[in-house]
Amino acid sequence: MRLTLAFACAAAFAVTTPATAEEGMWTFDGVPTDAIRKAYGWAPDQQWLDRTQASAVRLTGGCSASFVSSEGLILTNHHCVISCLQNLSTADSDLVAGGFNPADRARERQCPGQQAEVVTSITDATADIQGAIGALTGAALVKARDARIAELESAGCTDRAKTRCQVVTLFGGGQYKLYQYRKYSDVRIAWAPEFQAAFFGGDPDNFNFPRYAMDAAFLRAYEDGKPVATPVHLKWNPRAPQAGEITFVVGNPGSTQRLLTETQREFQRSERLPLTLILQSEYRGRLLTKMQESPDKMREGGDELFGYENSFKANSGQFRALNDPAFTAKMAADEAALRERVRGDAAIGDPWTEIDQAVAARRNGYLDSVFLQGGPASYSTLAGYALTLVRAGAERGKPNSERLPGFTDSALPLTEKRLTDPVPTYQWMEQLGVEFWASKAREYLGTDNADIRALLGKESPEALAARLVSGTRLADPAYREQLWDGGAAAIAASDDPMIRFFVALDPRARAIKADFDRNYDAPVTAAQARLAKARFAAYGDKLYPDATFTLRLSYGQVKGWDERGKPVAPTTVMGGTYDRATGQAPYQLAKGFVDAESRIDKATVYDFVTTNDIIGGNSGSPVIARDGSVIGAAFDGNIHSLGGNFGYDGTLNRTVVVSTAAVQQALETIWPAPALVAELAGKRGRR
Amino acid sequence: MRLTLAFACAAAFAVTTPATAEEGMWTFDGVPTDAIRKAYGWAPDQQWLDRTQASAVRLTGGCSASFVSSEGLILTNHHCVISCLQNLSTADSDLVAGGFNPADRARERQCPGQQAEVVTSITDATADIQGAIGALTGAALVKARDARIAELESAGCTDRAKTRCQVVTLFGGGQYKLYQYRKYSDVRIAWAPEFQAAFFGGDPDNFNFPRYAMDAAFLRAYEDGKPVATPVHLKWNPRAPQAGEITFVVGNPGSTQRLLTETQREFQRSERLPLTLILQSEYRGRLLTKMQESPDKMREGGDELFGYENSFKANSGQFRALNDPAFTAKMAADEAALRERVRGDAAIGDPWTEIDQAVAARRNGYLDSVFLQGGPASYSTLAGYALTLVRAGAERGKPNSERLPGFTDSALPLTEKRLTDPVPTYQWMEQLGVEFWASKAREYLGTDNADIRALLGKESPEALAARLVSGTRLADPAYREQLWDGGAAAIAASDDPMIRFFVALDPRARAIKADFDRNYDAPVTAAQARLAKARFAAYGDKLYPDATFTLRLSYGQVKGWDERGKPVAPTTVMGGTYDRATGQAPYQLAKGFVDAESRIDKATVYDFVTTNDIIGGNSGSPVIARDGSVIGAAFDGNIHSLGGNFGYDGTLNRTVVVSTAAVQQALETIWPAPALVAELAGKRGRR
Repeated sequence: MRLTLAFACAAAFAVTTPATAEEGMWTFDGVPTDAIRKAYGWAPDQQWLDRTQASAVRLTGGCSASFVSSEGLILTNHHCVISCLQNLSTADSDLVAGGFNPADRARERQCPGQQAEVVTSITDATADIQGAIGALTGAALVKARDARIAELESAGCTDRAKTRCQVVTLFGGGQYKLYQYRKYSDVRIAWAPEFQAAFFGGDPDNFNFPRYAMDAAFLRAYEDGKPVATPVHLKWNPRAPQAGEITFVVGNPGSTQRLLTETQREFQRSERLPLTLILQSEYRGRLLTKMQESPDKMREGGDELFGYENSFKANSGQFRALNDPAFTAKMAADEAALRERVRGDAAIGDPWTEIDQAVAARRNGYLDSVFLQGGPASYSTLAGYALTLVRAGAERGKPNSERLPGFTDSALPLTEKRLTDPVPTYQWMEQLGVEFWASKAREYLGTDNADIRALLGKESPEALAARLVSGTRLADPAYREQLWDGGAAAIAASDDPMIRFFVALDPRARAIKADFDRNYDAPVTAAQARLAKARFAAYGDKLYPDATFTLRLSYGQVKGWDERGKPVAPTTVMGGTYDRATGQAPYQLAKGFVDAESRIDKATVYDFVTTNDIIGGNSGSPVIARDGSVIGAAFDGNIHSLGGNFGYDGTLNRTVVVSTAAVQQALETIWPAPALVAELAGKRGRR
Repeated sequence: MRLTLAFACAAAFAVTTPATAEEGMWTFDGVPTDAIRKAYGWAPDQQWLDRTQASAVRLTGGCSASFVSSEGLILTNHHCVISCLQNLSTADSDLVAGGFNPADRARERQCPGQQAEVVTSITDATADIQGAIGALTGAALVKARDARIAELESAGCTDRAKTRCQVVTLFGGGQYKLYQYRKYSDVRIAWAPEFQAAFFGGDPDNFNFPRYAMDAAFLRAYEDGKPVATPVHLKWNPRAPQAGEITFVVGNPGSTQRLLTETQREFQRSERLPLTLILQSEYRGRLLTKMQESPDKMREGGDELFGYENSFKANSGQFRALNDPAFTAKMAADEAALRERVRGDAAIGDPWTEIDQAVAARRNGYLDSVFLQGGPASYSTLAGYALTLVRAGAERGKPNSERLPGFTDSALPLTEKRLTDPVPTYQWMEQLGVEFWASKAREYLGTDNADIRALLGKESPEALAARLVSGTRLADPAYREQLWDGGAAAIAASDDPMIRFFVALDPRARAIKADFDRNYDAPVTAAQARLAKARFAAYGDKLYPDATFTLRLSYGQVKGWDERGKPVAPTTVMGGTYDRATGQAPYQLAKGFVDAESRIDKATVYDFVTTNDIIGGNSGSPVIARDGSVIGAAFDGNIHSLGGNFGYDGTLNRTVVVSTAAVQQALETIWPAPALVAELAGKRGRR
């Protein structure tokens, strides 16, 4: 798939029933070593797990990664660094198309907005937060919970320059855990192949296998201007994977929804997924047609387009899964069994019916929340800045425990970094985005809707977009910093049209969130806490929580699958690229592949598949062998894995990985980087 | 909605249960006069019905209309003539934007591809065709049925210059009727308002009410270069509608699906509608972005864009309806009741299960049929020509009874007219269409699909589109005529790349149709014939057949509705346009409205709503008062009416009509046409 975490996830839910073999995204304090040993005759010990956890990196852009040298070198996917490459590119120097291979370490370049984080501790906070919630309901429940979370996060990480704390809600409120991270906010790009090699086959091959993609790149973490020392890291192991060998994927799956109730799944199937797919399709059509106007636009829009196409395909797969009776029947049966089991249990009550009512409320407010909660911020970087600034102006004056998530003490540093890091924006894309938002908001809410009348007045979507985008100064990082530093007073005094637009929208957006908190979040949190109890009672600790973009371990093996009766081999070789190439996009050969054809060992394993259970956010995750060494970077799932949002099917779901063997070929032969080769081999890199 | 028949309809189905009050699209040989009399104390007599039938016009472009003078003058909607106006426009003379108001009748201009048809007789052919089918199944059933239909049509209308015969399948095969039409293949545009008045409010207001749209136009039927004499016609009655007065809508509803079985509806909800919406959205985004490149493209793409937006909105409404549990519960209950009623009846058997199996087969073949049955013809006029020519080359050499529908003796004249009438095409739109088709076909079927490999070879979608569109000569009507006349030999000899592409596709497309015939059409036809029997037995003759783009009568009344507790008045007035205008698209005033503001009687009723049961294809239908006079032209439904494809809800569904009173104002005051005013008043028009 390109397993980037595409969208911020909503609440997290627990799984209904015990995991089947190889199913599960396990937290590091709950790895099922017995089950692993039973399946493979061996399981990792605590030392193995500790080393791996200390080597695993979360990238705040929505990806996973790992340290692979003692000098802060990070392995991840190319598609996890593409927005960095795009931000650093100019008309004269296209780092996406041409790749990035600096002559020495001094030329490694900082990625705007990127931060690397390593888990240093996990503490249980369940009793603490459930105590703060007590018997509260509605808005008071949400307020008390969020306030206590803000306090715990603030108290847990006082050194905000180097640490970050996050309370993670597991099992929908059945557990709360405080994660502490060591953070590195200076992350630089160290090496990237040509786009055409990284994303060979483009959207058509995305989520498919066999595959021929060099979807790998290297970053490096810096601090005080110097590479970070990382004595604990994964050993680089450029060997071919063996069919049947055990593999671990360690990374940050973003969000799964394996325990929606039937009603919640029906909401996904009938409302959220179709609307999302339809909006994404039109935006995709607008964007790619606009890009065709010039080579500059083609370059500038690339990352945005690929992101939409990827997310569209992932959502399509989810939609297909929920429309597959065979797939959904099992989930329905699981729910019925659990309901039967707890019938009449007063401590559990009837959480399903409570959730039904919450979903009904959500249906009523859904279009408002889609179009008005963030306004055009989903489609425009500049609008996103305005949203953050207007919110920050109001929130930062409040006590920590009363602020919106994203503006608490623990969250502010990353929010500020993302706001103020210099990133190029493009007028045409910004205009396209705001115009699209305005035209769809009017289409779905209606011309006579009071909010639309208030926001658009007599302006057309086109005129509104032109006025906001051409009039705003938010493209200038200095101006953003000035408004951030100036706080509420600066916002009030600003005549920037984008700021004024969000000032006008803000009360309505807050009211929509308040409705959501009261009518959906609160009752679902309360109901899910009891559902979790029911599940723990029924299935013990053989449960893993839904994904929450926090560190998880999945085990599996190198293995193909049967596609409609035909076996799909688990590996491809680099020579296969030449057979698949057509000379036309997206199947042209990268220049490096053309030039190096005679020198490339065509029998080298290129990409491979494993049975690991993964999802968006796992992109860049190291694929680790039994001996703790890294043999690949997960970058995709096969088409069947898309249903993995709702459930795992080990006969079909596969993780797609680029092998370290292929990356080694790339570093040695195609886009030579001898210093990196030496560093990966454990020799000291050259400064 | 803009009630154009957007897409050719598939099979037709009967309704399950007796019609509720005002529900129903009744054939002229089955008008429920007792029910009408019961509801309104009066019902039309045979003379009334005969006059109305003789005045009712079907436009082969997918609309309805009526004769409103003795000299062949036809009232319809503006949106039914927009493609004619577009075809006749040039960069210097934009008849869409500026409207069309010829100084005299000699300047009325022929609409390419348009044909007007009036029903002259309806004959029952049920026994005949069911006899031909006998006990056949599978492909043999379809072949026998279609052969007998071709024979009956051919024998029924020997004068193919002036008549056309069509066998209509009603109740899914429960009835067959032979319709004879008098046809007029020279139809000219006589008057059209400015686009901005006709479609004021554009897509945002489409399917909504209150409404301010002059969606009316006049055509005139010609024969031998002279206007056709139409002594029988509807009396023009430019008075305001009265709340509560009875209204008849007489026209050609295109297609309803009120008796899909549960399984068929689920196929619509989970497969057909979402895929259609997603494809339409992306195409819409591509097209409108391309149009923004220049005023020429804006003009050239207009009709196509509006067609897509309209169809998208109609499909959205259907999708919403099928996801509304309250809406679908009734249909499920009806099916369950009928199943219960016929349980154990050997003559009925279990048609539902037979249909389930047919739907399963259709699911398997669905993507193939969407992308390969007609190839790029759905998105490209030139591709459509190639498809017709390649098919015609093969079919015309066969005996009449063995040809594909569309190429039988009775169908050939219109097929030829549509192929050879000169219509402008635009390279950029053609390329856009073929490129879109190729890129989506590859996306959905997969790069490694055998058909995709065969059709695309190593070409990208962009390269394929460029080669086909820039290389084809099919934009030249003379070349099309030459290939038509030359038949199979000319097709075989042609090196036109578009022709060659369809020659390559044709065997696969035929195989897909054969699969569909065998695995879906045949079993569903057989099952539906027994379902119809079950329904006739249960509910007698109080049933109306699903819509089939043939003449129907619907009765109702002028009446508003309650929208979430607030009453919506049934009428708007012309002055309301000025209040709603914003100065920006799509809410700018038409020039005529600006210039004539002081002279327009602002209290004139503009648009109004009625409870008539209508659907796409009804666009342009006369709205007829008790005395047989015409008081408006139906052009839309409200948003609730979109569920009307599956069922009618009289409390909410409304037909939207432009009043003859408003059209009279337009003809007198805004875009003066004194000759038409005189003609409509029954005075002889000036030659």
